[in-house]
Amino acid sequence: MEIIFLGTSEATPTAEKNQTAILLKYNNENILVDCGEGTQRQFKIAKLNPCKLTRILITHWHGDHVLGLPGLLQTLALNNYSKILHIYGPKGTKYFLTLLLKTFAFISREKLKLEIHEILKKETILETKDFKIEAYPMKHFAPCLAYSFIEKDRYKINIEYLKIHGIKEGPWLKELQKGKDIAVNGKKILASKATTLKKGKKITFIFDTLLNENCVKAAENADLLIAEATFFDKEHADLAKERRHLTAKQAATIAKKAKAKELILTHISQRYSKKEQLLLEEAKKIFKNTKLANDFMKILL
Amino acid sequence: MEIIFLGTSEATPTAEKNQTAILLKYNNENILVDCGEGTQRQFKIAKLNPCKLTRILITHWHGDHVLGLPGLLQTLALNNYSKILHIYGPKGTKYFLTLLLKTFAFISREKLKLEIHEILKKETILETKDFKIEAYPMKHFAPCLAYSFIEKDRYKINIEYLKIHGIKEGPWLKELQKGKDIAVNGKKILASKATTLKKGKKITFIFDTLLNENCVKAAENADLLIAEATFFDKEHADLAKERRHLTAKQAATIAKKAKAKELILTHISQRYSKKEQLLLEEAKKIFKNTKLANDFMKILL
Repeated sequence: MEIIFLGTSEATPTAEKNQTAILLKYNNENILVDCGEGTQRQFKIAKLNPCKLTRILITHWHGDHVLGLPGLLQTLALNNYSKILHIYGPKGTKYFLTLLLKTFAFISREKLKLEIHEILKKETILETKDFKIEAYPMKHFAPCLAYSFIEKDRYKINIEYLKIHGIKEGPWLKELQKGKDIAVNGKKILASKATTLKKGKKITFIFDTLLNENCVKAAENADLLIAEATFFDKEHADLAKERRHLTAKQAATIAKKAKAKELILTHISQRYSKKEQLLLEEAKKIFKNTKLANDFMKILL
Repeated sequence: MEIIFLGTSEATPTAEKNQTAILLKYNNENILVDCGEGTQRQFKIAKLNPCKLTRILITHWHGDHVLGLPGLLQTLALNNYSKILHIYGPKGTKYFLTLLLKTFAFISREKLKLEIHEILKKETILETKDFKIEAYPMKHFAPCLAYSFIEKDRYKINIEYLKIHGIKEGPWLKELQKGKDIAVNGKKILASKATTLKKGKKITFIFDTLLNENCVKAAENADLLIAEATFFDKEHADLAKERRHLTAKQAATIAKKAKAKELILTHISQRYSKKEQLLLEEAKKIFKNTKLANDFMKILL
């Protein structure tokens, strides 16, 4: 599993940071979380192919999180993107996407097959044999969602153990992988011995929200929590509340309470551009394993 | 007068080139011609302040020429832009801008004072004492305009000459600057001797069009013609016609026929990214004073 930060600025971009977009690569899935203006160019700079995208998760319809969508969709259409592109987002997503497709005189847009999923409450929005994605309502000025990508636990076959017991490949291996004991040629094989549990990874994305109880629920036991930290609690705790954003301290508190393993802070206000380290320190006092995001930073899980 | 290329790519951006946007600075005017996705970030990288913008000229409503508009407008609103922003564009501009303002959940957008000018035919769209801007209909898949910025000729006062004749400052200088002879204390002063003619500069922007007779009209006697050259005539003259774009050869032919002084080619298709010099050579065979545009290139006139 690989996570690539394609944009890490707050509402307006800087020379160094584009607006929010994060790519999650997992097997054949290429999932984009948010799509700030200029995201398609970030793909180019990172030498990534946007045509590999399978899904887009929109946290909310504020410009700095979605203004890259029309250009990206147009580029997919121009490149004969032929898959169904699934777009998930909060209430209003269908309305905004319809307007958006009307607004811009797309070339070839009619070619694009979009499936739009509007998420109205906490729910599992997708489940496959390998992973699921959960959405949690957040509290911002526009309907907003946090997302968790949760890889399922897998039982990896212990090949040496099966060899010793003379068990060959066959459909029974699938049973073992489900954690079920089997009997082959009268021999009982215990799943607990024939397999090793490989815990699935969990990544949670929390953007643009007032601190609320769903934050900890969303991030529970996450291997990685990526959270906005627009404000420095020490200086602007009140402003964070007024603007419905998190502070670095609050992001760290969520990570701690949720028993997350790692925290990455992003979407930091430009007013702190010369002292981002202070926000990092603020967070680290509460949750040690914290990092700051930068454009094109890659994380392997 | 200064021209800054903020984006020089064709329909999709590259790692090196953003989508079309050109800034023209003249006295208190900061005029943006087109606004491709990511233009507001290009302002940041070039250390330019978008709040100094006075006008935006839109050539046509294809994504690669306008998708930077919502983000730019939002940033202006967030920065308390208080002037009236004049936006000029072809038929459909009012409709598209209204939809666009509805589509994105702008913060503070109600603060922004926009004056939208829809241009339906060849006309002088603005005239001040110092300059005028003309628009010429082009031929593309969407209504499209070429623009010429035309600085007016000025008569500069010859101070030494007036000193010799004992003429002091006064309202009569304005008359001389209009090219009129005057009489002061019974002395006749000839405008032709008391002033020097300073020819105004003319810059023409031609984007996304099939070659058509308005191209030469728009660029007539231009000091600088900035023209799209999406295709290499030698290889893709037919494709240029089909896609309603200019070739490098056609752009040069326009410059030659219009008696322009300089030509800059931009919006070149990525298929030629490794051989842009061939397009330059193709143009130079017809019009010698040709250059290729690059992001952040500056031209002083």
